[in-house]
Amino acid sequence: MPAHRAIDLNADLGESFGRWRLGDDEAMLDVVTSANIACGFHAGDPLTLRRTCAAAVERGVVIGAQVGYDDLAGFGRRAMEVPSDELTAGILYQLGALDGLARVAGGRVRYVKPHGALYATAAVDERQARAVVAAVTAYDGSLPLLGLPGSVLLAVAQEAGVPTVREAFADRGYTASGNLVPRSEPGAFVEDPEVAAARMLRLVTTGEVAALDGSTLRLGVDSICVHGDSPAAVATARAVRRELAAAGVLLAPFRR
Amino acid sequence: MPAHRAIDLNADLGESFGRWRLGDDEAMLDVVTSANIACGFHAGDPLTLRRTCAAAVERGVVIGAQVGYDDLAGFGRRAMEVPSDELTAGILYQLGALDGLARVAGGRVRYVKPHGALYATAAVDERQARAVVAAVTAYDGSLPLLGLPGSVLLAVAQEAGVPTVREAFADRGYTASGNLVPRSEPGAFVEDPEVAAARMLRLVTTGEVAALDGSTLRLGVDSICVHGDSPAAVATARAVRRELAAAGVLLAPFRR
Amino acid sequence: MPAHRAIDLNADLGESFGRWRLGDDEAMLDVVTSANIACGFHAGDPLTLRRTCAAAVERGVVIGAQVGYDDLAGFGRRAMEVPSDELTAGILYQLGALDGLARVAGGRVRYVKPHGALYATAAVDERQARAVVAAVTAYDGSLPLLGLPGSVLLAVAQEAGVPTVREAFADRGYTASGNLVPRSEPGAFVEDPEVAAARMLRLVTTGEVAALDGSTLRLGVDSICVHGDSPAAVATARAVRRELAAAGVLLAPFRR
Amino acid sequence: MPAHRAIDLNADLGESFGRWRLGDDEAMLDVVTSANIACGFHAGDPLTLRRTCAAAVERGVVIGAQVGYDDLAGFGRRAMEVPSDELTAGILYQLGALDGLARVAGGRVRYVKPHGALYATAAVDERQARAVVAAVTAYDGSLPLLGLPGSVLLAVAQEAGVPTVREAFADRGYTASGNLVPRSEPGAFVEDPEVAAARMLRLVTTGEVAALDGSTLRLGVDSICVHGDSPAAVATARAVRRELAAAGVLLAPFRR
Repeated sequence: MPAHRAIDLNADLGESFGRWRLGDDEAMLDVVTSANIACGFHAGDPLTLRRTCAAAVERGVVIGAQVGYDDLAGFGRRAMEVPSDELTAGILYQLGALDGLARVAGGRVRYVKPHGALYATAAVDERQARAVVAAVTAYDGSLPLLGLPGSVLLAVAQEAGVPTVREAFADRGYTASGNLVPRSEPGAFVEDPEVAAARMLRLVTTGEVAALDGSTLRLGVDSICVHGDSPAAVATARAVRRELAAAGVLLAPFRR
Repeated sequence: MPAHRAIDLNADLGESFGRWRLGDDEAMLDVVTSANIACGFHAGDPLTLRRTCAAAVERGVVIGAQVGYDDLAGFGRRAMEVPSDELTAGILYQLGALDGLARVAGGRVRYVKPHGALYATAAVDERQARAVVAAVTAYDGSLPLLGLPGSVLLAVAQEAGVPTVREAFADRGYTASGNLVPRSEPGAFVEDPEVAAARMLRLVTTGEVAALDGSTLRLGVDSICVHGDSPAAVATARAVRRELAAAGVLLAPFRR
Repeated sequence: MPAHRAIDLNADLGESFGRWRLGDDEAMLDVVTSANIACGFHAGDPLTLRRTCAAAVERGVVIGAQVGYDDLAGFGRRAMEVPSDELTAGILYQLGALDGLARVAGGRVRYVKPHGALYATAAVDERQARAVVAAVTAYDGSLPLLGLPGSVLLAVAQEAGVPTVREAFADRGYTASGNLVPRSEPGAFVEDPEVAAARMLRLVTTGEVAALDGSTLRLGVDSICVHGDSPAAVATARAVRRELAAAGVLLAPFRR
Repeated sequence: MPAHRAIDLNADLGESFGRWRLGDDEAMLDVVTSANIACGFHAGDPLTLRRTCAAAVERGVVIGAQVGYDDLAGFGRRAMEVPSDELTAGILYQLGALDGLARVAGGRVRYVKPHGALYATAAVDERQARAVVAAVTAYDGSLPLLGLPGSVLLAVAQEAGVPTVREAFADRGYTASGNLVPRSEPGAFVEDPEVAAARMLRLVTTGEVAALDGSTLRLGVDSICVHGDSPAAVATARAVRRELAAAGVLLAPFRR
C-alpha cells in the first residue's frame, strides 16, 4: 500500500533573462503540477515571467513565487546578509510583481518558495527565516511555504500559522542528516533520470531514500522538485512522472 | 468664479534607493493629495517603497504607480527604444510590485503615471503609448492614466476606454505649444515657490498659464504636479496649496 | 587575382553572464583572428571576461573591447538616448575594465567595437558617434575603431585621427544602400553557413556582395564578422575560414 | 616628540550614483591626501568616477581603488558569500575600470582599499582575504592594500609580499580588541568633529586611542580615514587636519 496516493511535482521555471535562455519551460510545464516561477531578482525578466505565467495557466499548472536575493550576477546562489526589513520588503516586492503577472494571465500566486542561497540560508538561519515568513504573513498568510523538511523555515512558518509543504529533490543527493549535499561537493547531483525516478518512487511509497553515505533516510514529503536548469531536467521530470504513474501514484498539485 | 472648485496636487515620491536619499517624502505627503510612487525600475528600493506606501496610507494620500524604464543609472530619464511587449510586461511587473506593497500597507494602486523619459516618449510616440495603455488595460482598465494634456498617451488611453487625468507642472516652464521646456534648456524650471504658486492659481482659476515666450497658453488640467526631487519641492508644494486654499479651491484627490 | 591576400575574422565573445551561457567561445576562438569581448555593460560577468581574455591570449587571438549601453536586460540592443558625457565615461569605464583583465591575462585591448544598438546608433547619429570617438581618443587614440563601412562613426573617427577598420557581416543580410537588414525583418540573417561563406569569399575577392533586393553592393572591408550568439555561429565561422583559405586568402588579424 | 612626523588622511569618495548625490567630494578633496574612489560596484557611476579622478589629480590627491561587492542596492554593506574566483575577477574588473578613468585624468590607481562588508569580511575571513590579495597580486603587486591593523587581510597581503597600510577611523568607535563598533550598535560613530580630531591627535602622537569600554587601545597606524558620506564628514576631516597641523604633524600621502 503506497504511503501516498497523490503527490505534487514542482520545478523552478521562468529563469531566462533577456537574451539568455535557461531551461525548457514549455516542456517542463507539460510534466509538472506546480511551477516555482522566478520573480526577477535572481532571474526572470518581466516578459519571460509573463509568458511563463500564461503557459502555466494554459496547462492548469499551479503558480508559485520563487523569491530570491537581489543578485542577478550570482543567480541568487550567493548567501547574503540582508537586514530583515530589507529582506521582507524585497520578498513582498517580488510576490506582488509575480502575482500581478499571474493575475493578468488568469491565475494567481498560490504558494511561495525561496530560491537558491535564500532557500539554504532560511533553512538554518532563524533571522532570515523570520523575514521570509513575515513577508508571506503580510502578503497573504494562507499561501503555503514550500521548503526542506525539518528546516528552520518551515518551523518558523508553522509557528506563525503559515501552511507548509515539504519537498524532496529528485536530482540532488542527501546527507545522512537530511540536508542536500552542497553543489560544490561530489554526490551533489543525481544525474541519471532513471536513478532519480527510482529514488523518488521509493521515497513516495515507503518514506525512505538513500543518503550519500549509504544510510537510509526517512523523509516525509508532499512534493518532489526537479530543477529546471539542469541538462537532464526534462528527462528526469518525465521519468519521475512515469514511474510514479506506473505505480499508481497520482501526480496532483498540493493546492487545488 | 473659479474654473475649478477642487483640484488634485501630486508629487513624485519613493525615489530614494538604498543608501541614497532623494526628496523629503514625509513632508511632501503632508501637502499633496496624490503620490506618484516609484516602482523600482528608475528609483525606489523595496523597503523605501513599502515605507512610502505606508506613510501615504496613514495620511489618506492616494497612491499611484510611477512606472518607468528599467534604468537606475539614468533615473529613467534616458529615452529607450524598448520593444512593445517588453515595455508592457515591464510596466505590469512594476504595477504588481507596487500594488502588493500598497495592499500590505492597507491601500491600493489607484492610478498610473509614467516617469521621466517614458512620460516624454509616450506623450509623442504612439507605439510606446500603446504599450503603456496595454499594460493598464491588462492590469485594471479602471485605473486612470495621469499625463500631459493633449499628449498621444492620453489620446490612446481614451480610445481604449482608460480614464485620463490631465496635469500641469508647477515647477516647470511651458513652450507656447503646451509642451514642457526640456530640462537642459533655459526656462525649464520655475524655481521660486511663490511664482509657481501664482502660476498655478491663475491656471486653476482661469485655465491660463504664461508660456516661456510670453504668450498665454490655455490648458485644461485635473491635477497639479510638484516634482519631489528639486530643492524647493516642499516649499513649492506648500505655496501652491496655500495659494489655492486662500482662493477657496479645495485640494482633493481625483480618485476618492 | 584576389582583392585581398589577407583578411581578419572577428566575432562577439564573452557574452555569457553568471549562470547564463551564450555561444561557444572556446570553439570560436579556434577559428577567428580577432575577438570582440564584451565589457560587462550589455553582457559578460568579470569571471567570464577574465577567462575569455586568457583563452584569446593563449591562441594569439587579438582582443578588442566590445563596448555597449548599460542594459543587461536588453543585451544592449535597445537604443538609448545617453547624454554624451555619460556615454563617453561609460565607454572609458568598460575599456579600462576589459583592458585590466586583458593585461592580467598577458594581452591588451587592441581595438574597440561598439555593440548592438550603440553600433547601430553611432553608425547614423553624429552626437553618439562623437561620444564614442571621444572615449577612444581619451583612452588611447591609436586604438582602431571597428565599424560599418560608410558609417558616421567611422567618418567621425577618421576626422579625429582614430584608425578605422571596416567590417562585413557574414551572417547578416544587406540592404541595397549598404545597411544591415534590421533583426526584426525578413532577410536579416544568412543562416546557411555555406551561403554565408560563399558571400564572404565573393566579397573579399571581388569587393561585391548581393543585397536583399538582388542588387549588387560594393563594399570595402578589412574584417569579416560572425556573430557569436547564433546557433550556427561556429559552423559559419569555420565555413568562412575554410572557403577563404581554400581560395588562398590569408586569415590574419588587422592588428599585429 | 610625536610618534609620527607625517600621516596620511583618506576618505571614501565618488560614491554618488546617477541622480543620487552622496557626500561633498570637492570639499573633501581639499582636505585629504588620499582618495578611496568607488569603482561602480557598490557606488559610483562612470561619469562621477571620471570627474572625481580628475578633481583628485588637479589637487595632487593620491587615487586609490575602493573595491566592493557587486551590490548597489545594499551599497556594498551586506556581506556576500562570493566564490573566490568570482571575487578576484570582480575586483580586477573594478581596478581596471578605475585605473582607466584615473589614467585618462592624468593619474593612476596607486593603492587598493576594500569597501564596506568586503572590508569587514576580508578582515576576518581568510578565503575572501586571499581572493582580494590575489586580485592585487595579479593586477600590480606593488599596489599597497589599505586596511584594518591586525586584520587577516593585511596578514595575507604581507605573506604575499603586497605592501600594507594600516588605518584608523576618525569617525568610528573601537572595541577593546581593536575592531570597529558595528554600525548598528551604540558608540559606532564619533559624531563630534572636535572629539574625533582630539582622538586622532592622541593616536598619531602617542599610538593610543580610547576604546568604547574606556580602556586604552594601542594601534599602529599609517593613515586616518574619515568617511565621506556622514553629515559631519567635511567638518571632521577639517578638524583632524587642523589639529594635526597645529601639533606639527605633516599630512602627506603614504604614496608619493
